Amino acid sequence: MNDMRPLFLLSNDDGVQAKGLKELIDMLSPLGDLLVMAPDGPRSGSACAITSHDPLHYRVVEVRPGVKVCACSGTPVDCVKLALEQEAGRKPDLVIGGINHGDNSSVSVHYSGTMGIVLEGCMKGIPSVGFSLRDFGADADFSFAVPFVRDIVKRMLGEGLPQGTCLNVNFPKAEGKAYAGLKVCRMARGTWTSEWVEARHPRGMKYFWLTGRFVNLEPESTDTDEWALAHGFVSVVPVKIDLTDCALLDKLKGWEAL
Amino acid sequence: MNDMRPLFLLSNDDGVQAKGLKELIDMLSPLGDLLVMAPDGPRSGSACAITSHDPLHYRVVEVRPGVKVCACSGTPVDCVKLALEQEAGRKPDLVIGGINHGDNSSVSVHYSGTMGIVLEGCMKGIPSVGFSLRDFGADADFSFAVPFVRDIVKRMLGEGLPQGTCLNVNFPKAEGKAYAGLKVCRMARGTWTSEWVEARHPRGMKYFWLTGRFVNLEPESTDTDEWALAHGFVSVVPVKIDLTDCALLDKLKGWEAL
Repeated sequence: MNDMRPLFLLSNDDGVQAKGLKELIDMLSPLGDLLVMAPDGPRSGSACAITSHDPLHYRVVEVRPGVKVCACSGTPVDCVKLALEQEAGRKPDLVIGGINHGDNSSVSVHYSGTMGIVLEGCMKGIPSVGFSLRDFGADADFSFAVPFVRDIVKRMLGEGLPQGTCLNVNFPKAEGKAYAGLKVCRMARGTWTSEWVEARHPRGMKYFWLTGRFVNLEPESTDTDEWALAHGFVSVVPVKIDLTDCALLDKLKGWEAL
Repeated sequence: MNDMRPLFLLSNDDGVQAKGLKELIDMLSPLGDLLVMAPDGPRSGSACAITSHDPLHYRVVEVRPGVKVCACSGTPVDCVKLALEQEAGRKPDLVIGGINHGDNSSVSVHYSGTMGIVLEGCMKGIPSVGFSLRDFGADADFSFAVPFVRDIVKRMLGEGLPQGTCLNVNFPKAEGKAYAGLKVCRMARGTWTSEWVEARHPRGMKYFWLTGRFVNLEPESTDTDEWALAHGFVSVVPVKIDLTDCALLDKLKGWEAL
């Protein structure tokens, strides 16, 4: 690795073999050196999970000029923690998650392993961003994301981000033409419903597959990530580490008198 | 279950056999009917992880008047989702996580399976609270938490919580006397360092255990959960589902001109 170039730490939750990660590597290698520490298989829905009961290992699977790729047995957040302490050598300039196969808008940010990577980078004091595409296909088309990914990364290198804030960037599914533009938005209020499909084991017992349908609870609002994605825009949501609902602090003060 | 009594949905991340859950059941059974859906083994550090690649199952392990306990093969959030759709029959009045063996203050909220339960309940529109004790011992002393747990649950039943906000309650380790009181606080800024212990496999390869040391980045601040716990108080932090950093929205608007 070259100390004169920016260092980007990359990870994802679809696993080291995923197309979205490979495309991200190609998009970013002109801009800096890349250390990639990705799970050795799919870890969708990992959120900020960490592995507390089992040991972890990783191996270097690819080295070429400016790019080192490692595959790790842990969660996406484990990958970031391992890379920072064991492989990076210096503090990366950016931590970048993705590009995820499937979007992470609205409340899905809470379940997202891609955003787990980003929150972890942010908690370590590094400007961090997650990229996700509204297309679950293994061969999804990431090409229209290229100018946005490069522009956002350059802006983050130039301007930084406030401590404790990271970015959640989502792309609409590619429809064969350039996206409508970029919208800076807030998280839509939304919820998942009808989440389980029941199946029957050959020996008779029931089991369940997690699935579900997303419902936007404020479809009329035009300042949300859901609105942006539904209208062909790339959504950028600034996301905070500090979850405190400051507006409620005063109202709850009365509870101090047990 | 009796439709005239409040219905509480309980889960945890230490597993259905954990003392903290058993104690919570004893504390709350005088106040309402309890549906318990807990992981069938330890799931510490699960955050909001969901199981997207494997099917899940659960079994009823205990039924007595006003209490039904189920053990589930999934994560804490899976437990909440399964219980709500498959077992609850009606919308619970509260979702309650814990009592966790180990605290979930400051940034640990992001890794916490206990708080995953609470965020999930909140995302489903149900007033939700997580209880955690700063003591990892399997036989930790939860007795001093009893009046606080009951009081907080009664207040939540009476007053509710705003949509999109839940509570993160942490107890100091028991020191043989009543806690100093209750403090409504914000999340301390903090970080984990020195997170890996290296070990050597008999065949020579390295592997790693996740551990680490928490650092409070604002030890002088007296309005944080870390300060409260360090001074013998029970900490109550109101936690928001909406992660948007609204203060940054305007500043980032310039990025819309790619």
